[in-house]
Amino acid sequence: MSERISSVETIDVRFPTSRHRDGSDAMNPFPDYSAAYLVLRTSAGAEGHGLVFTVGRGTDLQVAAVQALAPMVVGQRVDELVADPGSLARRLVGDSQIRWLGPEKGVVHMAAGGLVNAVWDLAARRAKKPLWKLLADLTPEQLVAQVDFRYLRDALTEDEAVTLLRTAEGGRAERERRLRAEGYPAYTTTPGWLGYDDEKLARLCREAVEDGYRLIKLKVGGNLTDDVRRMGIARQVVGPDIQIAVDANQIWGVPEAIRWMRELAQFDPYWIEEPTSPDDVLGHGAVRKALAPVKVATGEHVHNAVMFKQLLQADAVDVVQIDACRVAGVNENLAVLLLAAKFGVPVCPHAGGVGLCELVQHLALFDFVALSGSTEGRAIEYVDHLHEHFVDPVRVSGGRYLAPDAPGMSARILPDSLARYRYPDGPAWADAEVLAGAPTS
Amino acid sequence: MSERISSVETIDVRFPTSRHRDGSDAMNPFPDYSAAYLVLRTSAGAEGHGLVFTVGRGTDLQVAAVQALAPMVVGQRVDELVADPGSLARRLVGDSQIRWLGPEKGVVHMAAGGLVNAVWDLAARRAKKPLWKLLADLTPEQLVAQVDFRYLRDALTEDEAVTLLRTAEGGRAERERRLRAEGYPAYTTTPGWLGYDDEKLARLCREAVEDGYRLIKLKVGGNLTDDVRRMGIARQVVGPDIQIAVDANQIWGVPEAIRWMRELAQFDPYWIEEPTSPDDVLGHGAVRKALAPVKVATGEHVHNAVMFKQLLQADAVDVVQIDACRVAGVNENLAVLLLAAKFGVPVCPHAGGVGLCELVQHLALFDFVALSGSTEGRAIEYVDHLHEHFVDPVRVSGGRYLAPDAPGMSARILPDSLARYRYPDGPAWADAEVLAGAPTS
Repeated sequence: MSERISSVETIDVRFPTSRHRDGSDAMNPFPDYSAAYLVLRTSAGAEGHGLVFTVGRGTDLQVAAVQALAPMVVGQRVDELVADPGSLARRLVGDSQIRWLGPEKGVVHMAAGGLVNAVWDLAARRAKKPLWKLLADLTPEQLVAQVDFRYLRDALTEDEAVTLLRTAEGGRAERERRLRAEGYPAYTTTPGWLGYDDEKLARLCREAVEDGYRLIKLKVGGNLTDDVRRMGIARQVVGPDIQIAVDANQIWGVPEAIRWMRELAQFDPYWIEEPTSPDDVLGHGAVRKALAPVKVATGEHVHNAVMFKQLLQADAVDVVQIDACRVAGVNENLAVLLLAAKFGVPVCPHAGGVGLCELVQHLALFDFVALSGSTEGRAIEYVDHLHEHFVDPVRVSGGRYLAPDAPGMSARILPDSLARYRYPDGPAWADAEVLAGAPTS
Repeated sequence: MSERISSVETIDVRFPTSRHRDGSDAMNPFPDYSAAYLVLRTSAGAEGHGLVFTVGRGTDLQVAAVQALAPMVVGQRVDELVADPGSLARRLVGDSQIRWLGPEKGVVHMAAGGLVNAVWDLAARRAKKPLWKLLADLTPEQLVAQVDFRYLRDALTEDEAVTLLRTAEGGRAERERRLRAEGYPAYTTTPGWLGYDDEKLARLCREAVEDGYRLIKLKVGGNLTDDVRRMGIARQVVGPDIQIAVDANQIWGVPEAIRWMRELAQFDPYWIEEPTSPDDVLGHGAVRKALAPVKVATGEHVHNAVMFKQLLQADAVDVVQIDACRVAGVNENLAVLLLAAKFGVPVCPHAGGVGLCELVQHLALFDFVALSGSTEGRAIEYVDHLHEHFVDPVRVSGGRYLAPDAPGMSARILPDSLARYRYPDGPAWADAEVLAGAPTS
């Protein structure tokens, strides 16, 4: 009997982060970092782990979406799945009835991503490699075969993608050696949550520089007077040589984004992130044109490769921010990395939340070794929250991510943490104080 | 005690339409037309009905999404809700935790739309008016206050919207009289489903012309040889004066859409609908430029007003196809109608499925009376499926929709039909033959 997927277990796990306003921004004042967590189990007792990051209410819906797609995974042969996760990705995204609920967006698309990522985790474990290394060891043709080009060929063809990867083959061994020795640049969002007071902001900015970060990020968009004051404090603390990015989390319309950012320009912001709706390709382009040389960054809510394609075609972004859990998994993120490489735009992955750092580091490291070949203008977001719950947590030191070497995609959460934070029946949520302290809007 | 919403009842209702391949197209070979149906009940015993159209698997997920938002509706004062559904729409769309699952797209956005539409149904019933008339009787200022302009002001401001509506006030009474006397143009998709054989196609084309239709629509994109043959048959049957639109349901990439449609150009297609991903604003623009004078139409899967805004800004569409259930209800469709009016692009609503004709006619009729003031280049899609299940079904005669005059949004499904087609436990689904006959992909 060949080894098959025997079950897809799902868990609604939520951390009561809103109590201390960790993660608070203009659009998300009270997030409870959460995940639709999933485990693929095989008939031989192997496991692949994945998760879809969420921020509280609705995580049950995300779990239900994973279960809606699970019948397309259960019973599949493991050797076929791990040899070609792209075929599964196409089936999950293309189901002709469930597709109506997207298409290629929202909970059904993220559910597909969670399942696809879990298959990659399983594949990397079987190969006894961290995912970034598994990907980097695939041939250009194998990688390109993992991408669905249906809607992308007006910007990037299969042949062009192979050429990009082939070109990057020179120097790979040296880059891999450097990566293992020196790690990959990180930037930190820890100082800048909107819910923190000025003293905490100043202290955390100071500590970030002492810790070796060259780029920090502040949340903006709540109140202009506050933003001017906070940005002034941050700039004074870090000095002129540290880059300060700002992040509006979609709070503005296009004219408002331009007006507001002109008031902050005096503090030399490095990029403005999510100045408006993530769907507004042309709006990002207008903001970018008006605010140059301030860069425009977006991606954590950009729901698929078709949207990234247009952001690049329209010269609407300076920085592409892939997210490990928003699109349909590793395969669609490969498409985005290839598109970014074609257009020569650097990728600075979105991370934070629960497990986003753990997952997305693999994609950035692969990109450095096997595709872009550069860390110039690139850094992975780092937030020091909730890593203690992971079996293979990220290691960040001196402002750099150290390359993970454990097999898999680093997605696995400790069993004790899953039990404690399972919603609504885990002990962490049974605590009445926690429940009372969770605002509802 | 003031009247309040006491409950949100939801029902998963599915019709086994895939057995006869009604509704079959290149992307949806076996749809089972379905709905996440919902009923708002008030403490005084009144009801508002709404639905989110789906095509089979995943309807349970759409139902769960409605229930995830229901706590924001239950307990609300009815007088406040019906006086200002826009405030509810903003709260539903803006919930800071559930928003992460979109934002403003997919099942959570459609769930918001279902609830918002049900509130409008309730409002129109209380006012004892069909919805189109209720909307047409609002002042420009009242209508504009129902729209969320946050992400739209770079294309349309509140003041411009008021001016558009004010300008349309001349001739309103006469247009309303004409509408009640003559109805509103319809077009039919009944002849052209991909699963029908040539004989059925020819017969249905002939009948459509005899029935008074001036525009018919054929599905394309399965196989080019078949499309050339089918389009040739249709053109021969209907003659040169009847418009034939074609619909690819997103099956192509941009270069493929252009190549394929050049082969069909000999048959003088009126528009190509959904030539590629509904997210690909720039792609639609490229297709439109390459294929002119063939028009480009899209909208049934365009997930929010920000996307419609860009399709108009980029000169990417000739025809805007609003859908009653894809965006966040009447309020967001008001935004789209205002944008289309500003850019001078006609709206031809998408309909068919279950209840889409019933719901969307109200928006087109409102647009004619109070906004665009014209039926030139405009028609509402009509498909003769499943209307028998509605309390207030559409009436189409001589190729025209007759204006509904019953109070509400015409969303109400007959209780017997709900009971019979409830999934999975309704008698229609307990029939083993039906279950066996439903393909799974």
